[in-house]
Amino acid sequence: MQEHPQPPSGILAGPRHLFPVRVFFEDTDLTGFAYHANYLKWAERARSDLLRLLGIDQRAALEAGEGHYVVADANLRYLAPARFDEALIVSTEMLELRAVSVRLIQRVSRGTDLLAEIAVRVGFVGLDGRPRRQPVDWRTAFETFAAKEA
Amino acid sequence: MQEHPQPPSGILAGPRHLFPVRVFFEDTDLTGFAYHANYLKWAERARSDLLRLLGIDQRAALEAGEGHYVVADANLRYLAPARFDEALIVSTEMLELRAVSVRLIQRVSRGTDLLAEIAVRVGFVGLDGRPRRQPVDWRTAFETFAAKEA
Amino acid sequence: MQEHPQPPSGILAGPRHLFPVRVFFEDTDLTGFAYHANYLKWAERARSDLLRLLGIDQRAALEAGEGHYVVADANLRYLAPARFDEALIVSTEMLELRAVSVRLIQRVSRGTDLLAEIAVRVGFVGLDGRPRRQPVDWRTAFETFAAKEA
Amino acid sequence: MQEHPQPPSGILAGPRHLFPVRVFFEDTDLTGFAYHANYLKWAERARSDLLRLLGIDQRAALEAGEGHYVVADANLRYLAPARFDEALIVSTEMLELRAVSVRLIQRVSRGTDLLAEIAVRVGFVGLDGRPRRQPVDWRTAFETFAAKEA
Repeated sequence: MQEHPQPPSGILAGPRHLFPVRVFFEDTDLTGFAYHANYLKWAERARSDLLRLLGIDQRAALEAGEGHYVVADANLRYLAPARFDEALIVSTEMLELRAVSVRLIQRVSRGTDLLAEIAVRVGFVGLDGRPRRQPVDWRTAFETFAAKEA
Repeated sequence: MQEHPQPPSGILAGPRHLFPVRVFFEDTDLTGFAYHANYLKWAERARSDLLRLLGIDQRAALEAGEGHYVVADANLRYLAPARFDEALIVSTEMLELRAVSVRLIQRVSRGTDLLAEIAVRVGFVGLDGRPRRQPVDWRTAFETFAAKEA
Repeated sequence: MQEHPQPPSGILAGPRHLFPVRVFFEDTDLTGFAYHANYLKWAERARSDLLRLLGIDQRAALEAGEGHYVVADANLRYLAPARFDEALIVSTEMLELRAVSVRLIQRVSRGTDLLAEIAVRVGFVGLDGRPRRQPVDWRTAFETFAAKEA
Repeated sequence: MQEHPQPPSGILAGPRHLFPVRVFFEDTDLTGFAYHANYLKWAERARSDLLRLLGIDQRAALEAGEGHYVVADANLRYLAPARFDEALIVSTEMLELRAVSVRLIQRVSRGTDLLAEIAVRVGFVGLDGRPRRQPVDWRTAFETFAAKEA
C-alpha cells in the first residue's frame, strides 16, 4: 500500500513558523531570477499554512460568511535574488495582535542567506469588505503562538 | 482635461474577435520565453473581452447567482515561442454552440506568425458547479457573432 | 483591410504616466476581490510601459548584457478592493533619480477612488545581479519625464 | 537544533510519480474554485520534481547552454473543480519516449476523485529554441522510471 505524499507544510518552531518553498519555472522571469511579486504569494502561502497549523479553518469561515483576512499593507525589502530550483524557507513571526488586525514579519531565506523581508499587516473583514473583529478563538490561537518560547 | 487611457480591448472583425496582449516580465520564465501556462490566461482574457463586447455581463450573472463559464477541456499546441515585450494578438472564433457549452478556437499570433492554437470548450454552470443552460440572450449573442460575414 | 488592435498602452500626462488595467478572472480570488500580489504585477506592467514610452528598450539592454532593473523595495498600502471586470488606472510618478536607482510612487485607482498606493525603488543591476549605473540616456529620459509640467 | 522543513517533494511509486499540491488563495478565482490555468502550473511543478528525483539537473543544463524542455502540446480535460485549502495529488506517468520529446499523462486527484487529466508532450530544445536530442542520461533515467513495476 503506497502512502501518498503530503502537500508542503510548515512547522511551528516556538514563536516562529517555518514554511518551505521551491522555486519553479513559473516563479522565474527572463532575468533568470524569481519574479518579485511571487514573494508576496509565498508569504501568503506561509500565512495560510500557519493558520491551518493553529487550527484556524479559513475556508469554513468564508463559507459561513464570517469573513476573511485582507492585506492592509505590506513592506517588502529585497536583499538577494532567488533562482530556479532553489529551496527556500519563509519564516513568520507575529509582531502585534489587535482586535481587527495582525502584524507579522516574514523572512525569505536560502540557508543562512536572507533574501527578502516582508512586514505585513492583515485585517479581518466581513464578506462586505468592512473591518470586523477577529473570531475570539483565532485571537487566542495567535496569542498562544506568539507566547511560545524560542 | 486629460483623458484616461482605456484597458486593453479587442475588436469584433466579422465572426472573429481580435484581442491584443503585451508580453510582460511576469509572463516570461528563465528560458527567456513566455511561460506556457500564460497562454491559457491570455485566451481567457480574450474570451472575457469577447463576452463584454457581445453585451454579456459575467459579473452581474455571478452576483445574481445565475452562473458562469468553466473550461471543460482545452487542447493547446505551441508552435513558436513568444518573447518579452512582444505585441501579440489572440483571435477567437466560435466553432459550435450547444445548450450548455460553447466550443471556440483561439490563435495567438505575432504579426503573421502563429505561435499557439487553443481549442477550448467552456460549459455554463450554476453556482453549485453543475451544468446549466446558458442564458437565452447569451446564446443569441454568440449566434449573431458567429454568423457575421468575414 | 482590418486594422489590428494594439496592446494596452499608457499615456504620458505631464510628469505622470497613466496605464490602464482590466481585472480578469486570473486576478481575483475566492473572496471575490483582486488578489493582493497582483497589484505588484500591474505596477510592473505600468513601469515597463513607461520605459517603452520613454524610448527605453529593456529587452535590447537585457540581450546586450547591459543589465535590467530589479525591485529593491516596495511599500504597498491597500485602501479599497478591486473587483472582477473593473477598469483601473495605474498612475506613476518619479520621486527620486539616483545613479543606480529610481524611486517611484504608483497609485491604482478606479475612477476617483484610490485603491492602492505603491512606493517602489528599483535598482539597475548587471547580469550578475550587482548594482550598476543606469545607462546615461535612460537617466536623461527619466529627468525629462519628471520635469514635465503637470 | 531545529530542523528545517523541506519543500514539497513527490515520490516515485513504481512507474508513477506522485506530487502533492495545496490549493492556496492565489490558485482560486471569484467563482470559488481553482483557476483552470493553474493546473498547467501544478503539472509543470510535478514534472520538474520528477526530473529532480530522476537525478536530472535542469538548472545545470540551462546554465551550461545544453537546453531545456518546452511544452509542445497539452490536452486538458477538467472533470471536477478543486477548492481552496484542498490537498491534491498530481500523478505522472510516461507514455512515450522519443529522441527529442517525451509524452506524459498527468492526473490531478483529490483522494479518489479525479479532477483533471493532462496529456502533455514536452520537447527538448537548445537555447536557440530549436529541437535537440535529449541528453543520453536523461533518456536512460526516463526509461528506467517507466520500466519500474507498478
